[in-house]
Amino acid sequence: MKQLERVKEFDGWLMRYSHDSACCHCEMTFSIYLPPAAKERPVPVIYWLSGLTCTDDNFRTKAGAQRYAAELGIALVIPDTSPRGDAVPDAVDRYDLGQGAGFYLNASQEPWSRNYQMYDYITQELPTLIETNFPVIEDLRSISGHSMGGHGALVCALKNPSFYRSVSAFSPICHPVASAWGKTCFQAYLGGDEKRWREFDATELLIDKAELLPCKIDQGTEDEFLADYLFPQHLVSVCEKRGIALNFMYRQEYDHGYHFVASFIGEHLAFHAQYLTSMASSNWE
Amino acid sequence: MKQLERVKEFDGWLMRYSHDSACCHCEMTFSIYLPPAAKERPVPVIYWLSGLTCTDDNFRTKAGAQRYAAELGIALVIPDTSPRGDAVPDAVDRYDLGQGAGFYLNASQEPWSRNYQMYDYITQELPTLIETNFPVIEDLRSISGHSMGGHGALVCALKNPSFYRSVSAFSPICHPVASAWGKTCFQAYLGGDEKRWREFDATELLIDKAELLPCKIDQGTEDEFLADYLFPQHLVSVCEKRGIALNFMYRQEYDHGYHFVASFIGEHLAFHAQYLTSMASSNWE
Repeated sequence: MKQLERVKEFDGWLMRYSHDSACCHCEMTFSIYLPPAAKERPVPVIYWLSGLTCTDDNFRTKAGAQRYAAELGIALVIPDTSPRGDAVPDAVDRYDLGQGAGFYLNASQEPWSRNYQMYDYITQELPTLIETNFPVIEDLRSISGHSMGGHGALVCALKNPSFYRSVSAFSPICHPVASAWGKTCFQAYLGGDEKRWREFDATELLIDKAELLPCKIDQGTEDEFLADYLFPQHLVSVCEKRGIALNFMYRQEYDHGYHFVASFIGEHLAFHAQYLTSMASSNWE
Repeated sequence: MKQLERVKEFDGWLMRYSHDSACCHCEMTFSIYLPPAAKERPVPVIYWLSGLTCTDDNFRTKAGAQRYAAELGIALVIPDTSPRGDAVPDAVDRYDLGQGAGFYLNASQEPWSRNYQMYDYITQELPTLIETNFPVIEDLRSISGHSMGGHGALVCALKNPSFYRSVSAFSPICHPVASAWGKTCFQAYLGGDEKRWREFDATELLIDKAELLPCKIDQGTEDEFLADYLFPQHLVSVCEKRGIALNFMYRQEYDHGYHFVASFIGEHLAFHAQYLTSMASSNWE
């Protein structure tokens, strides 16, 4: 693991590392913010998954989350959105496929399958790396994300309900098999068998009876992708039918961008803190 | 005035406009954040001046200031750092001269003098435009900035003590005539007469007996430009000699970047609010 950057922020440390990934067969980059509390004791972790075209830099620069993480005493781990590099397949004319668009799944199709194993990377390799190398509490993890990363956070949580304590999302792609983004990318990464697509689709996983952790979702009403790409109403409908609690809010007049995320990230981190910091306190006080 | 963008954030509105500038003889761009309070009544304004290479976008994206502005009920006005456009002179191989590097002065030398009138733009044309078109209180203005913009904020305040209520700066170029940045740029913009340079130099203005408004300055100790470019110790020394109050803080381990600004922008806006919002309340309650 190689430290690329270390910057003080809100009395904690924002750092960037690269490492050779066994899952993705390439060098991967992530950022981590350690709050000031981590100088004294291990802290819980929230994993943040970013959206299409992003790297680990967007969230740490634009969301204003470090202030809240510092106050709450929670670390933020911010991975890249896909494998990267000259040796990694890409679709250079597409923003929604290839590098920057890993969709947090395990690809089974050529040429993607060797590197595009983001689901295993996020749920296994990266947490192990973080828990081996930083002062974090192993069993106190939550996960959140935006757009494609909201999809990723929901899928990771639905498939690993005992691994995370809570999940949240901003403007998530809730039903990718019904969305042009999902259809074209799942076809490319997973092949033609739609049964395999459902394994990486939050709404389909819930139809298939997955259980939902404490979950908070915010969606802007002026989101330019809402009508054709996101389908939160499908997820809400399944939760209603199955009697599953879901903290879902439409936010009037907000769009899809990072100013929307910035406006509500404080509420999201406070939501996760309910499930992370009370347990952290009882472990360490 | 043409609206280029309008995004909801923290229940207020972040907007971007362009307009034909009479001072700068070109189209200028600025951003403005109106807090939710501005729906009900006029609000005070803080002008923010950014540093070298920035546009109006950096601060609004990276500093996390809108949250505090929303809470305090203060508008933020964020101009560009120079005139722009194909018809505007530039030094394409220099990041510290020409477009993106206006230094907030009135240039007198060719080829700069026609467009590079940023001092008049910031202290006259832009406030008039803002006060004519937005729900702001005319007499409640403060000014702040970062690096080159910290220099600009200090100079604007020192030269117009009755126009602003307070001033603050992050990592400002405190003594440009002693700095390589200042020397080369002041030479280019203002010519060889160093007496003219002192008119746009905070430390020199204070030596010449200018009065200082309530002023807060933060400076990171790990700032990569501190030793050779900023010279806050010169400003502090003049204030000490003249018995002028200055709220100056070295911040241990912080660098020159926007994560430093983000860490303390809340304290800066709260500092300005002392001089802006109590007066706003007495005017409007």
